[in-house]
Amino acid sequence: MNPKSAIFSQYLSDYEMEKITSDEKFIRRVLEFEIALAKEQSYLDIIPKKASEEIGRVLAELTISPEDLRQGTLLNGVPILPLLELVKEKLSTESRTYLHFGATSQDAMDTAMVLMLREALGVINERLTTLEDNLSQLRKKYGDTPCMARTRGQLAIPITFGHKIDAWLEPLKRHETRLTTISKGALKIQLGGAAGNRAEYHEKGETLSNALASALQLSGGSSWHAQRDSLCELTNWLAIISSILGKMGADISVLSQSEINEVTENAEGGGKSSAMPHKNNTILSEALVALAKLNAGLQSQMLLCLIHTNERDATAWILEWSCVPQMLINTATSLGHAIAISKKVRVHTDNMRLNVERFKNQG
Amino acid sequence: MNPKSAIFSQYLSDYEMEKITSDEKFIRRVLEFEIALAKEQSYLDIIPKKASEEIGRVLAELTISPEDLRQGTLLNGVPILPLLELVKEKLSTESRTYLHFGATSQDAMDTAMVLMLREALGVINERLTTLEDNLSQLRKKYGDTPCMARTRGQLAIPITFGHKIDAWLEPLKRHETRLTTISKGALKIQLGGAAGNRAEYHEKGETLSNALASALQLSGGSSWHAQRDSLCELTNWLAIISSILGKMGADISVLSQSEINEVTENAEGGGKSSAMPHKNNTILSEALVALAKLNAGLQSQMLLCLIHTNERDATAWILEWSCVPQMLINTATSLGHAIAISKKVRVHTDNMRLNVERFKNQG
Amino acid sequence: MNPKSAIFSQYLSDYEMEKITSDEKFIRRVLEFEIALAKEQSYLDIIPKKASEEIGRVLAELTISPEDLRQGTLLNGVPILPLLELVKEKLSTESRTYLHFGATSQDAMDTAMVLMLREALGVINERLTTLEDNLSQLRKKYGDTPCMARTRGQLAIPITFGHKIDAWLEPLKRHETRLTTISKGALKIQLGGAAGNRAEYHEKGETLSNALASALQLSGGSSWHAQRDSLCELTNWLAIISSILGKMGADISVLSQSEINEVTENAEGGGKSSAMPHKNNTILSEALVALAKLNAGLQSQMLLCLIHTNERDATAWILEWSCVPQMLINTATSLGHAIAISKKVRVHTDNMRLNVERFKNQG
Amino acid sequence: MNPKSAIFSQYLSDYEMEKITSDEKFIRRVLEFEIALAKEQSYLDIIPKKASEEIGRVLAELTISPEDLRQGTLLNGVPILPLLELVKEKLSTESRTYLHFGATSQDAMDTAMVLMLREALGVINERLTTLEDNLSQLRKKYGDTPCMARTRGQLAIPITFGHKIDAWLEPLKRHETRLTTISKGALKIQLGGAAGNRAEYHEKGETLSNALASALQLSGGSSWHAQRDSLCELTNWLAIISSILGKMGADISVLSQSEINEVTENAEGGGKSSAMPHKNNTILSEALVALAKLNAGLQSQMLLCLIHTNERDATAWILEWSCVPQMLINTATSLGHAIAISKKVRVHTDNMRLNVERFKNQG
Repeated sequence: MNPKSAIFSQYLSDYEMEKITSDEKFIRRVLEFEIALAKEQSYLDIIPKKASEEIGRVLAELTISPEDLRQGTLLNGVPILPLLELVKEKLSTESRTYLHFGATSQDAMDTAMVLMLREALGVINERLTTLEDNLSQLRKKYGDTPCMARTRGQLAIPITFGHKIDAWLEPLKRHETRLTTISKGALKIQLGGAAGNRAEYHEKGETLSNALASALQLSGGSSWHAQRDSLCELTNWLAIISSILGKMGADISVLSQSEINEVTENAEGGGKSSAMPHKNNTILSEALVALAKLNAGLQSQMLLCLIHTNERDATAWILEWSCVPQMLINTATSLGHAIAISKKVRVHTDNMRLNVERFKNQG
Repeated sequence: MNPKSAIFSQYLSDYEMEKITSDEKFIRRVLEFEIALAKEQSYLDIIPKKASEEIGRVLAELTISPEDLRQGTLLNGVPILPLLELVKEKLSTESRTYLHFGATSQDAMDTAMVLMLREALGVINERLTTLEDNLSQLRKKYGDTPCMARTRGQLAIPITFGHKIDAWLEPLKRHETRLTTISKGALKIQLGGAAGNRAEYHEKGETLSNALASALQLSGGSSWHAQRDSLCELTNWLAIISSILGKMGADISVLSQSEINEVTENAEGGGKSSAMPHKNNTILSEALVALAKLNAGLQSQMLLCLIHTNERDATAWILEWSCVPQMLINTATSLGHAIAISKKVRVHTDNMRLNVERFKNQG
Repeated sequence: MNPKSAIFSQYLSDYEMEKITSDEKFIRRVLEFEIALAKEQSYLDIIPKKASEEIGRVLAELTISPEDLRQGTLLNGVPILPLLELVKEKLSTESRTYLHFGATSQDAMDTAMVLMLREALGVINERLTTLEDNLSQLRKKYGDTPCMARTRGQLAIPITFGHKIDAWLEPLKRHETRLTTISKGALKIQLGGAAGNRAEYHEKGETLSNALASALQLSGGSSWHAQRDSLCELTNWLAIISSILGKMGADISVLSQSEINEVTENAEGGGKSSAMPHKNNTILSEALVALAKLNAGLQSQMLLCLIHTNERDATAWILEWSCVPQMLINTATSLGHAIAISKKVRVHTDNMRLNVERFKNQG
Repeated sequence: MNPKSAIFSQYLSDYEMEKITSDEKFIRRVLEFEIALAKEQSYLDIIPKKASEEIGRVLAELTISPEDLRQGTLLNGVPILPLLELVKEKLSTESRTYLHFGATSQDAMDTAMVLMLREALGVINERLTTLEDNLSQLRKKYGDTPCMARTRGQLAIPITFGHKIDAWLEPLKRHETRLTTISKGALKIQLGGAAGNRAEYHEKGETLSNALASALQLSGGSSWHAQRDSLCELTNWLAIISSILGKMGADISVLSQSEINEVTENAEGGGKSSAMPHKNNTILSEALVALAKLNAGLQSQMLLCLIHTNERDATAWILEWSCVPQMLINTATSLGHAIAISKKVRVHTDNMRLNVERFKNQG
């Protein structure tokens, strides 16, 4: 599918996450950054209060079309310069100088990304909780049902279906817990100026950065222009979530095999074939496996981003722009599908029992 | 960037290739497949001529909205079933049975992908030729200019700028030559029926498949539902092209470093910084390096697609839907940028000579 | 290089880590596991005290040659079965039944891996501390030296060399801190029996597992046969460390470019060329970049391991056997090289200052 | 496993390929290169005949221990300089100057790699032919046996076992055919001198290079120091072979599932479990899948190698040293296992037929 495909936009993408990672939201977040920057700068007497007020007023109401940044982005390699030019047209001559004062494009880009991540993680965490709840309920209902363990593809010994669910639920819970710390590390204000040392703000740099962090409700600390480790820790978390769900998908697919038939992915129907109407394909489970592979590959790219040469390295930075939103979309899509499975799955407890009996009689 | 970003759609994507890989084109190609299938089937008396004519007439004028396939794709894991349902609504009861007769979703999906690839490779090959021409002209103009070789980052010995250009041009030419054979292998009709053995057509399967191949101007042969090797050879070709251009981008970036300054990527300006107006960033070259890394990662996914279990394995197949169009877009974008560089680059022959002189005097 | 290469064993591998990940150590750790298992089982009256004592005595002194496991590993896909057969030959008939009692191969394999990881992380953490100390001292000495920032390959504005060092040191410190939690999660006893639910031990399973964990000084909890998330979190940590060092290597290489010459990687010489004796190649820094790329690729494989189907999936599990030791070796090698750089690097403060002056005069 | 593991050396490595990629062979090939270089140079009056003769005589009998290159490789980043120093000790003062005359380390390294590849591809091609023969015989024997197709994990329609075998055999044959062209492109002499333009040989460069190519029975043409495309095409071929075998392994594993039981991987036994003696694990098939994933990941690294900056870039080059031998080993191991399967597999035609009957009765 073309990445802009509407056809696959529910199956291999996620509407809510596409919106969160959209151009419109990005532009809005950059403007938010600039408004907050000006406001905090006026409090610290770095720029005049009047300029800050005008910037706040004008930018709050401004709408900029993504299409208008297309050409400028091609020319500059980042959309901030063309965006600021459009903004400046709406400002008085006096205030123009004070827009984006002392900041660099990366400050705006990275902070906008962090704000995106925060919103995205909100959704992801919510879905994670829903999924855990659903799986817990499934466990309550079917946890004690005896079923066969299969190791290396072969029937092993009887276990319970609860043990299978645990292999999905326990890792999810562990990583839900980890998110708080990881978020705190990654959701960090970026304000470094041209080379990351906030030289433009002289002795006020740290104070300004912390004030801005506080205003935007982000973590503070030194700038991280060329330090992408916390971001990469977060994306690995996303990839781990996808892979846990990939395991869940792989399990459901095996349990749904015609010869095993212990589970039907979608009790409401679905998974039909144009040539074979008798089939009951595990549509969502297969997507879970595929999305897990995609995120696994993307994390490898994110680790390459850490090899960020000098004080700014676009050959690494650009990769993040592609990979981070895609990983968010993949993870959110997977969670959405896993929730759907957890709601619509039919567990054939009779077949589970039957397969256990057969095994015992064979032995 | 969100994959649907307009902001980055010129810098990190390509309008022409997005169009070729679009939903609208996909739907059109599936309809083309169904029309041709019906036509050849009527010639072989597999379906009635009347049905074939109606199918040809109705489908030729039919427009289906991608949005209308969204829900059905989620439900079935492929868009063919919902698409055919919409088509059938427009057909007489008699003809409905003969639409997509004996074919499976994968036949339509894969053939549509192959038709997309053919169109895309046309554009890519054209750009490749343009780029080679431009680089040849650059070589004619500056080929004899002495400049320094740099090995492992260190000044080595004087060479010519022609030798540097050759490191981009020679591999491109080699791979341009390879494309004919690779295309022939990959641009192959897919017609296998439910399980790939064309059982639905009895003894007429091979004849039908070859006739259909001929009608759509594709290669013939046995079906390749679960044999994805030729496709993977083609995507590796795409990744190699990107990586050759990645090397070109890396070279241009080094030659443009402030301390070296032997080349300016864009003599017409561009590459400005919001914080440092004196800079002359190598915007396009950096994108070349980043896109090469992305395609390198995607080829790894394509090789995973070859591990296609049984007669159809969506956990592998789905990956192709994401990766193939993205690799085409990345490659076309890279070629577009490389062509732009080949046209707009300024070669500072004086600085090249100066650096050679300095080196000789040091020695 | 062949993975068994001696030629490259100091440049692209690490003697200490090769030893820790060696066959001999692996066999030793499996025996340790079996000894501890028998001992705890005898305390809990699962096996006779006499058998436990014999197992403890015999296995403590037993030496098994890796070569003797070669054929059996090929036949069984894991070395535990052939290893246990060799062990049993040394035991009395009565005690044989009680060796590896109720355990499965994976219990021994995974616990041995965890013990390997613990030893390896000890070395890695020690090197990390040494590196941080050295970089801190370098910072003390040269932190205030003015030097040029370079963004997107271009001269940006003056910063200090301390700011550059911080981009290596701060992420390292952050991740040193993370190691405690990550280790605790990953260094976990594995005792699940045939299918992971400890059915073989009936109601004593949990107690036994916790006792064994305590005896081997590992974390306890439920078995993780098919839950590989904590391991994958740990390997991502390794990959992040490599990538941080990859950035350090990339920076040193740029600063050592002939035209910049602000740093010499190895003040004691080294980095010579067979054709160009004037060169001063950044041998170790380049290895840092290469090793970072390798680990980035391997982490992608580790994430695939999480898609661990059913109760045991060798198509995923096998990958860990290759990737985990290799990632440990790559990380330890990188740390060794980075320490060597931190000790041998010569910082040309005069050139740094000169480059800043030149920039100011240009401006 | 540690990469030097003996335990896993038959299961996840290959003795014959380890030998071909060994240090000893590498040293021998470098010496061969130097002997041939001197000989051709003497024919072209570039060096004295006497020197050439001494070099030929001395190097032919010389044995150098890999261990003696360890330290020098760490110091220089390539083993050629320390190797040549050891060689020079054995030469007369007059001849020393003429050893490796005008060549650079990369010339020796790359040519040695190409000679390794040639030998390795000989073995691989031979195994490929054997495998194809065995599969053809299997097809002759069982090709017409009816069995069930399974698409998306679900029973589809009856096909023949021949159709399944074709999905392995046809791609293998296609790629066997491709090898001739690919080899010709990749097995190319490397002689470029310090910067790849053979400046050291003045007008005799091309003649010398072609003569050397002819002497070593390699392809000729311009040097490819920074042009790694043909190599990368070859490694993708290796990865494709692995992935085709990965599909074969995945298929065998499914067909061997307890519930399907249409195939036993190893009729001679094997695949036992320490906890469950009733099992019949598909030991080799699982390795095929795992090795395919590993090679898929490595090809991504090889594509990164193409981004080879300037006239020599060790951050890219080093990767090849790790990845190329590993990919050869993985591919040869896979082929060995696939051959073993093709010989030892038991096809349960009765169960295949039974499963088809069951399906028909259900329908």
